[in-house]
Amino acid sequence: MLLPSIFRSLEEDYWHLCESVQVWDVSVQRQVEITGPDTQKLVQLMTPRDLSQAELGQCFYAPLCDETGGMINDPILIKHSNNHWWLSIADSDVLLWAKGLATGFGLDALVTEPDIWPLAVQGPKAEELLSRIFGKEISKILFFRSSTFNYQGTKMLVARSGWSKQGGFEIYVNDSELGGQLWDELFAKGEDLNVGPGCPNLIERIESGLLSFGGDMGYNTTPFECGLDKYVSLDADIESLSLEELRTRKSKTKLIGIVIDRKVNLIDKRVFIGSNVVGKITSNTWSPRYSVFLAFVRCELKHLEDAQNLHVKTTSGEVSVRITDLPFDFETLGLTGIEKGTSI
Amino acid sequence: MLLPSIFRSLEEDYWHLCESVQVWDVSVQRQVEITGPDTQKLVQLMTPRDLSQAELGQCFYAPLCDETGGMINDPILIKHSNNHWWLSIADSDVLLWAKGLATGFGLDALVTEPDIWPLAVQGPKAEELLSRIFGKEISKILFFRSSTFNYQGTKMLVARSGWSKQGGFEIYVNDSELGGQLWDELFAKGEDLNVGPGCPNLIERIESGLLSFGGDMGYNTTPFECGLDKYVSLDADIESLSLEELRTRKSKTKLIGIVIDRKVNLIDKRVFIGSNVVGKITSNTWSPRYSVFLAFVRCELKHLEDAQNLHVKTTSGEVSVRITDLPFDFETLGLTGIEKGTSI
Repeated sequence: MLLPSIFRSLEEDYWHLCESVQVWDVSVQRQVEITGPDTQKLVQLMTPRDLSQAELGQCFYAPLCDETGGMINDPILIKHSNNHWWLSIADSDVLLWAKGLATGFGLDALVTEPDIWPLAVQGPKAEELLSRIFGKEISKILFFRSSTFNYQGTKMLVARSGWSKQGGFEIYVNDSELGGQLWDELFAKGEDLNVGPGCPNLIERIESGLLSFGGDMGYNTTPFECGLDKYVSLDADIESLSLEELRTRKSKTKLIGIVIDRKVNLIDKRVFIGSNVVGKITSNTWSPRYSVFLAFVRCELKHLEDAQNLHVKTTSGEVSVRITDLPFDFETLGLTGIEKGTSI
Repeated sequence: MLLPSIFRSLEEDYWHLCESVQVWDVSVQRQVEITGPDTQKLVQLMTPRDLSQAELGQCFYAPLCDETGGMINDPILIKHSNNHWWLSIADSDVLLWAKGLATGFGLDALVTEPDIWPLAVQGPKAEELLSRIFGKEISKILFFRSSTFNYQGTKMLVARSGWSKQGGFEIYVNDSELGGQLWDELFAKGEDLNVGPGCPNLIERIESGLLSFGGDMGYNTTPFECGLDKYVSLDADIESLSLEELRTRKSKTKLIGIVIDRKVNLIDKRVFIGSNVVGKITSNTWSPRYSVFLAFVRCELKHLEDAQNLHVKTTSGEVSVRITDLPFDFETLGLTGIEKGTSI
């Protein structure tokens, strides 16, 4: 399955997402459905995040990790009931891993991929738009909570979530015909809100510090090496495959942010101190809001101890970079954002 | 990863493959590498085919099945040693399933995806071409056996195998730079053999009865439902996840062949007896050699008991089809193949 990456231009899409409302067909975000008495046990085995207090309808961003502490995926977990969870997966696969684990551990848990096609409605006007379709009840959904809504007689899950920091919802469309109808209705009822089609936006997600599996993180990185420390419940008394290893495994790399105060054309993805390569850019973009070049860099930790004078190679020579923790804190960086149209 | 499907035209590629020699970049055929003391145990768990007598260098076409008997993949298994196997996978994934099983069963087996980019050299002149590069030793490799050859100082595995019935080899290229060099050398040394680029060919593989995972078979079919009976060792005393279920699970569908003695344009993929849908075409092609339309059809078994008068719907109305077992036996079907150029 493919996912679009740009509709008009990266920058036009960016401003539109930040100011209006976009409808994203993120069907590619497949659901791994787990049902049966051992569901909760299997889900907990896969993640070091403590799920023991999970409530019905609650959503969890959670690293999935194998027994070495390496990441497998970073999905949104959704609890329908103790015996029924969805893993709304990110840019890699989970289905066969969950299936293999269930079989190997002899768990009474059925792992399947139902036909669910998530539709993300993102942007500051998303709530207004959805309330015109699902009613005012939509505004009662708290962040990372979900609720079931009736659409043309069919129940669909709607969660306040999505892969942007502009606010919005994800509708878990479960009927292909109704999906088309819903799409049309979103556009018809959102005309005055300047609704448009969209997709995860590179600029927005880097500014917001949202990581992409396969690029910014992978099988060989731990959650700690991806800045996902707060999603690892190190002290929890839970049965998780990775927790023991994560308690002792030493981080080798760290994902940091770099900022360059002007436009640059990189020659390659390497980041240097002197002539030593100390890291590699995993994602980068020009920020039209802050007028800076932003990048995520995977750095060797040993080189970061007294990190200074980092630079990259560009078509106009070596260029110094500022380093910072992720997500970017623009205020601390002394950067003031502009609104669209005032761009230099 | 993508795989090309046509170079010149489906039919030109077909004749070229059957008469000359083609080089296929089948890097997409990823290797799942399993190493460690429990390797053989893990591989055997995944397949109902008895591997206990496997010899070093031997290759096995084998269905991988889960504990319900449903297929996960149909790879070529290659035994490097008791503690080292490759699963050279077909059109679906295996890595995470193997990894999950190893973890769940607590096996001492490491599951990884090494960077191996298989290069298939297929066609009647493949042996001549490879002997010009690897020497006459290449002809000593028996069918579905492999041996290690030295290429520019690097050892590479070469097996007599490949996804066509035209003969040939698969070279498991393990060095990206040498891969390019080898590609160029194959073309330079094969000029007089009319070597050309190629890829699995729809016409050839249907004529030869080679099935494609995801189309002709899937998670919900057993090997028996795909005509792979001979790869299930029902009486073997082996530890295999699926064997118990496969001994008792009743087949619901069967993959059969259909033949139509003229060109047709299908309206859809359904196959009928009277007004009842009894099956669905999973793959089809026009055979330029036999001047017939050939298709694989997944049929409901209950409808096949006294199957006669099957038909499909075409743009020029209902057309009767002949049904046959797979692979197609053209002699029994009374069909005589022609050589290229004599085509009607």
